[in-house]
Amino acid sequence: MSAATKIRVAQLGLGPIGLETLKLAATKPWAEVVGALEIDPAKCGRDLGELTGLESLRGAKVYARGDELLKVGKPDVILHTSVSKFAEAFEQIVPLVEHGVNVVSSCEELVFPQLREPKLAAQLDDLCRAHRARVVGAGVNPGFVMDLLPLCLTSVVCGIRAIHIERVVNASTRRGPLQKKIGAGLAPEQFRPLLERGNAGHAGLRESLGLMAHGLSWQIDRLAEKADVIIADHPIRTRHFAVEPGQVCGIRQRVEATTRDSIVLTLGIQMCLDAIDPHDSIRVDGNPPLNVRIEGGIAGDEATVASLVNTIPRLLQASPGLRLLTDLALPRMG
Amino acid sequence: MSAATKIRVAQLGLGPIGLETLKLAATKPWAEVVGALEIDPAKCGRDLGELTGLESLRGAKVYARGDELLKVGKPDVILHTSVSKFAEAFEQIVPLVEHGVNVVSSCEELVFPQLREPKLAAQLDDLCRAHRARVVGAGVNPGFVMDLLPLCLTSVVCGIRAIHIERVVNASTRRGPLQKKIGAGLAPEQFRPLLERGNAGHAGLRESLGLMAHGLSWQIDRLAEKADVIIADHPIRTRHFAVEPGQVCGIRQRVEATTRDSIVLTLGIQMCLDAIDPHDSIRVDGNPPLNVRIEGGIAGDEATVASLVNTIPRLLQASPGLRLLTDLALPRMG
Repeated sequence: MSAATKIRVAQLGLGPIGLETLKLAATKPWAEVVGALEIDPAKCGRDLGELTGLESLRGAKVYARGDELLKVGKPDVILHTSVSKFAEAFEQIVPLVEHGVNVVSSCEELVFPQLREPKLAAQLDDLCRAHRARVVGAGVNPGFVMDLLPLCLTSVVCGIRAIHIERVVNASTRRGPLQKKIGAGLAPEQFRPLLERGNAGHAGLRESLGLMAHGLSWQIDRLAEKADVIIADHPIRTRHFAVEPGQVCGIRQRVEATTRDSIVLTLGIQMCLDAIDPHDSIRVDGNPPLNVRIEGGIAGDEATVASLVNTIPRLLQASPGLRLLTDLALPRMG
Repeated sequence: MSAATKIRVAQLGLGPIGLETLKLAATKPWAEVVGALEIDPAKCGRDLGELTGLESLRGAKVYARGDELLKVGKPDVILHTSVSKFAEAFEQIVPLVEHGVNVVSSCEELVFPQLREPKLAAQLDDLCRAHRARVVGAGVNPGFVMDLLPLCLTSVVCGIRAIHIERVVNASTRRGPLQKKIGAGLAPEQFRPLLERGNAGHAGLRESLGLMAHGLSWQIDRLAEKADVIIADHPIRTRHFAVEPGQVCGIRQRVEATTRDSIVLTLGIQMCLDAIDPHDSIRVDGNPPLNVRIEGGIAGDEATVASLVNTIPRLLQASPGLRLLTDLALPRMG
């Protein structure tokens, strides 16, 4: 592919995921990395070749503000990896969308933004259409294991009565921020309120449910959500935390829903240190019944990074607007 | 949905799969079954309500010829379940396409018709565009387990080195025609030539490989295909066959390919009577590695029937032409 037809990619957010996303994008023959946006003053003005160690990125810079990046050259798409709440992503994304820049975001709520922020979602959709830009939220979970993948599986089933999805993640092998998010090392009474207010734990269980139901044109009738902490029964040492017995070592979250047609949907996630038997499982109770198991689970930052970068070519084929993953072409490596 | 906006569906081929496909289509709120085509004189002229036992199909008839069906009312889409070879399907499909009728076919070679019949495929594509019709081949295998599903999984992986797909089907639980297709009860020297000429066994392994490689824009560089019989070591009785030790009880087929970028792809299928541990497995050797197992496998006519009917709404959204499943929207229950 000639440089003239390459997709011009920039990165917003240079945390660990953002840096890896940028590095993967740089390896794609269809992509040209043109710069990055980051509020951390220690990174602003620096060279991306130096920050990532990739020779091919030398010359591309980190900017503090969108207008500086746009002045250097308008990217076709921004990889946005900075926040989990749609309302916060909205503020960061809108100035880019107003310049016709497309956005693939790791923001969990953006996987189904109509759920918590229908007005903001409609507003962003209008802006996207007016400026001929596209925005989509993507990722592994939400974005694949508990929504896109089960949706694909329903294509070979008649008469579905229930879908049960379970995910067990061994957080011991993951990076520090994830271990912090599941309360590692905190006292249960200190962490529970954070979890109950949705300020910790896994974000996106209801978004996955919403995207799946939307993709199947199912109306959710009843919904119950629970979250609880897992307490360590032995001392656990990770690279980032030391957890004593009686302290929190993980979380368990679950959503149970019933559709208007009495189809039962359950989504459960357990993320804890020293988790035994990590896996993803999807069981479809239908004709035929399906029993799918992903040994070890689809975990790790590499999967997240891949899902974001691989979404770019499919997003650019879609019509302008605030898009859902169910609006895009078949998921695949781009 | 009002009757006026329903998708008018007809069936071509009233074998066991065709009848079930028709019955499933009849349950969909978006579909109206308008008739069927079948060459068997014993079925021509009969009422579909009577043939299927479904009250809702009373009044829809079986016709011997396409022009008779078209005179009664043009269907929007034909479910085509009659042959495995694209060249034969072509003859049956063209007169329908020339009237602008869309086709979802179970024809295995139609899942990737460019493989064996590139000229015929180009000709059908031209006809489709000229008459604003769409044709696609769909199914479970080829069409899902060994192509669409692995493609979806690649969306969360970077740096793929190999994809290994394995399918073990216990044919004892399947219908007679499938048991016949795997040579049940024949002498090995009698069945081997049939298998080697591609006149028996599983059709579609190279189509799955072709569709997957196409979906990933990978060029196949080297390809080796093998097929062998499985010999019964004990007497086996099914509802349809009695197999003695030394006779054929199944087949093993395998395709191994390497892409221009040295990525290894292997697709193996074993279908035999009394098969132990039936399952589908997909292993992606990449970052992260994926290890997906479908316990029991996606098997049974219900899965095939579902995959065909669920393809209809997605096909009608696509632009006219000879389409591949990779051209359609996200697979899901329609």
